[in-house]
Amino acid sequence: MQLSDFLKAARGEAPCDLLLANARIVDVFSGRIAPGSVAVAGGRVVGIGDYPARETVDLGGRFLAPGFIDSHVHIESSMTCVAEFARAVAVRGTTAVVADPHEIANVLGAEGIRYMLASAIGQPINVFYALPSCVPATDMETAGARLAAADLEPFFQDPRIVALGEMMNYPGVLNGDPEVLKKIDAARRHGRPVDGHAPGLSGRALAAYVAAGITSDHECTTAAEALEKIAAGMHVMIRQGTGARNLDALLPVVGETSSSRLMWCTDDRHPHDLLAEGHIDSIVAAAIRAGVDAVTAIRMATLNPAERFGLVHLGAVAPGRQADFVVFSDPARLRVEEVYVRGELIARDGRPTEGLKTPPPLPAAPSMHVDLNGLDFGLHADGKRLRVIDLIPDQILTRQSVESAPVEGGRVVSDPGRDLLKIAVVERHRRSGRIGLGMVRGFGLRRGALASSVAHDSHNIVVVGVADADMLTATAEVVAMGGGIAAAAGGRVAARLPLPVAGLMSLEPVQAVSAAVDRLVAAARDLGSPLKDPFMTLSFLALPVIPELKITDRGLVDVLQFRHVGLFV
Amino acid sequence: MQLSDFLKAARGEAPCDLLLANARIVDVFSGRIAPGSVAVAGGRVVGIGDYPARETVDLGGRFLAPGFIDSHVHIESSMTCVAEFARAVAVRGTTAVVADPHEIANVLGAEGIRYMLASAIGQPINVFYALPSCVPATDMETAGARLAAADLEPFFQDPRIVALGEMMNYPGVLNGDPEVLKKIDAARRHGRPVDGHAPGLSGRALAAYVAAGITSDHECTTAAEALEKIAAGMHVMIRQGTGARNLDALLPVVGETSSSRLMWCTDDRHPHDLLAEGHIDSIVAAAIRAGVDAVTAIRMATLNPAERFGLVHLGAVAPGRQADFVVFSDPARLRVEEVYVRGELIARDGRPTEGLKTPPPLPAAPSMHVDLNGLDFGLHADGKRLRVIDLIPDQILTRQSVESAPVEGGRVVSDPGRDLLKIAVVERHRRSGRIGLGMVRGFGLRRGALASSVAHDSHNIVVVGVADADMLTATAEVVAMGGGIAAAAGGRVAARLPLPVAGLMSLEPVQAVSAAVDRLVAAARDLGSPLKDPFMTLSFLALPVIPELKITDRGLVDVLQFRHVGLFV
Repeated sequence: MQLSDFLKAARGEAPCDLLLANARIVDVFSGRIAPGSVAVAGGRVVGIGDYPARETVDLGGRFLAPGFIDSHVHIESSMTCVAEFARAVAVRGTTAVVADPHEIANVLGAEGIRYMLASAIGQPINVFYALPSCVPATDMETAGARLAAADLEPFFQDPRIVALGEMMNYPGVLNGDPEVLKKIDAARRHGRPVDGHAPGLSGRALAAYVAAGITSDHECTTAAEALEKIAAGMHVMIRQGTGARNLDALLPVVGETSSSRLMWCTDDRHPHDLLAEGHIDSIVAAAIRAGVDAVTAIRMATLNPAERFGLVHLGAVAPGRQADFVVFSDPARLRVEEVYVRGELIARDGRPTEGLKTPPPLPAAPSMHVDLNGLDFGLHADGKRLRVIDLIPDQILTRQSVESAPVEGGRVVSDPGRDLLKIAVVERHRRSGRIGLGMVRGFGLRRGALASSVAHDSHNIVVVGVADADMLTATAEVVAMGGGIAAAAGGRVAARLPLPVAGLMSLEPVQAVSAAVDRLVAAARDLGSPLKDPFMTLSFLALPVIPELKITDRGLVDVLQFRHVGLFV
Repeated sequence: MQLSDFLKAARGEAPCDLLLANARIVDVFSGRIAPGSVAVAGGRVVGIGDYPARETVDLGGRFLAPGFIDSHVHIESSMTCVAEFARAVAVRGTTAVVADPHEIANVLGAEGIRYMLASAIGQPINVFYALPSCVPATDMETAGARLAAADLEPFFQDPRIVALGEMMNYPGVLNGDPEVLKKIDAARRHGRPVDGHAPGLSGRALAAYVAAGITSDHECTTAAEALEKIAAGMHVMIRQGTGARNLDALLPVVGETSSSRLMWCTDDRHPHDLLAEGHIDSIVAAAIRAGVDAVTAIRMATLNPAERFGLVHLGAVAPGRQADFVVFSDPARLRVEEVYVRGELIARDGRPTEGLKTPPPLPAAPSMHVDLNGLDFGLHADGKRLRVIDLIPDQILTRQSVESAPVEGGRVVSDPGRDLLKIAVVERHRRSGRIGLGMVRGFGLRRGALASSVAHDSHNIVVVGVADADMLTATAEVVAMGGGIAAAAGGRVAARLPLPVAGLMSLEPVQAVSAAVDRLVAAARDLGSPLKDPFMTLSFLALPVIPELKITDRGLVDVLQFRHVGLFV
């Protein structure tokens, strides 16, 4: 709609498209709730008051608030594509996200970012991106790409790029790594804020990190940490994801400080949680249940992230802003009943209406570059004692121990009796044939193998198993699917989930993906694993920035020493 | 300082320049005050804590807050140039201003804006500008320039242009005037907010104005007006200037709403007030005296304007931000004792230190284009009754009345007995010889004349007097000074103030300007005028947007009808 036509409606000289009458409107500016009607034309709020309109909907005194914004999310963690993720969160009232395509960028590089930007077009919600700042995450493994400052530069031309994404390389920042500073400088030159990732950073180190230009953090785990970061000038994103759940620990912060620097994020939510728990709506509701003022909780989901990312057209029910709303009956037990985007009703009671339209998912470039011929999980017994990765249940941290090697015929084999299983990381980006081999304890498999192309952050294929043959079967299935997750035993595939987009994302709805994950977990259980989510555990074993012992395609990594170590001691 | 060197200091590996130890630090993020030390290197805050430093200053437990920011000011109203204005406000703790060079732009056009940008270089405080959006203010008079959207466009390349300035033409906005919308669109394309100017605008009209993209207002005069504007998404600048003083009326707003959308501004402060009262410091102090929480009052002078204008390096005592501070002993009776800019002590107890350095003022292009030969204040008596501008004491509003014309020899003359004086506006931008003539009541002059090249908004020469000869003497003096203010009687100049910069600004310190204004007012009083500030009154008589009857070089304007009217009825 032309501004001149919009202004006609604003002057009351032409009818608006829609009048949402008899609402209690949540004013995130003042913190108050006031009765009124909201007029919409051309997808934007015309004003609050009685305007002539083609359609009037009586909200019967229910509450109307701005649509919710996730300030930091990896869509890849939903294991489905942008379109299906958008559908899943839109029905819960999320009308905008700032997504960091860090995972797909580690696989497909700049092409992955372009894929995500292209996928965002025509979605029912506003999909913005933070540019991945740390691809690859480390040099201890083989990623699919390396993104230098010069590679990121052109993306700043796209107005949907609203930030430089979480700067995980804080040693690089603190030591003034020129390439890291170049990326920060590029963001600032282009008027974009830089998101941080600084778990536990404090004192001088935190000050230096902030002084370098990094102005947010979503890794706080204690109130004291959050308060220190806020005092240093950071926006703090309180995270409640699938793995990391910081809401309870950080709720005291909301009362202790001006809430204007606080917002919510999910970071990573798996399909099951998106369905069972919801998205930002679930965090707002939990905060209110815990005693946070309802408008404050909503403001942290709306105006605050909008202001942090310069999204001046979002985040409030106010003239000129996009008509993205949630409607609910009871702030004390917030449940989103209706969702409007650009003035269109797109969901009611958690289900899509006809108004929820998503474009067909885009196919992505092939990403499984593995030669199955010659793939060999065999491991010469070059010593008597070897390092073992010890799982800690429900954590992505591991410990390390040293055990006597289970050997048969001069080769190291899995020993289910001692719960010592072979684990491998198969390079999948450039057909190098490179494979890292090790031992892990804690999976509990009695037979078979589990394999996945979701393996943070470089997303090679990680596979654990009892018999080499089953490890090969599971890996071959992952490759054959063009990426995905598989459980195999006795030479056949027991369960599978194709993830054809970069080996990370499905083209199916979240419901189908969640069901497939359930089948995979059931299969793993059938093979003997007691773990709640063995595939999530598996996906973090290749991440060499989380202590203590991890494995990549280049072999074992002692994370505390930040160096490769041999399998045998 | 290179970021890499800065980071060395931040890591504690190199000494900082300065440690302000033993302070109570005002944290505008959290709203709290915490004891600590602030380290500075390269003019920026390194961190809070104990750092090795080349110089340590013990603040003895005094309070340290961010330097103050004036969110909307016309430097021209100080009647002195940027350098002298900067000195005057810097010693009071103002370390940044967002100035709208609306006045000089009405005289010198784009060259005036370039002059102000050039003048800002090297100043002790941070001088940012909002681009004048309404030059000329109206078509009822002759201004020195006309600035179209295309003329403004190049200025957005300068990072010191932080907004499009107050959009006074709200009818143009509401009616979708294409040229007005083009200016707004340019600002938004360049990522700059648009400041508003919408006295009394409400309801649908306000909504339309905001929807068009205008996101602040400094013209609120009641709490209800401010609350409506805040709910519409506007940032509200509470103004306490020389003429318009809205603080008392708007203080209730601070408690009634989230303060994060509120800030302070002076808009226009005359030299005398800058010296006697101060600047933003005086507003913060008055707010605190009136019961506003001290940190909230300071936040409205620091973080809030910094965020509104995207000045992410200002507005807080936090790592990486510019080391602009004020130091004081008692928040309850705030008096700024020391001022630091970029880590340099520039003022103590309201007086500059050696650290306060200003570059020499820049000369401006000549702006008095008047042919004195042939200048004639004679006025044929073309009727018996004429319209009279009636002053309302201490207001810039006027009324109109109709009186019998005082006539001598077929010509209209002043009649001091009835306090009917001749008033003229002499076009001074393009030697057109155009002159508007009228009658005014309320100046009370018994003899002589007063003339000024400060005459909002087109700044032609406005002159009032008893005898034509004295009107000519005063006008000639204004022209001879290259602009300024003069009082004349009996053929000689009684008092004068040269304003060689566009006829608006002196090159002398505020103290000298204030003394000259005092002499001018004394001279006016000597000539019979009882007015508190006859020159300020005079300067608004040519402003045809303030009701009811005004005069321009094109004659009388009935402001309520927004059209020219004849002198005789």
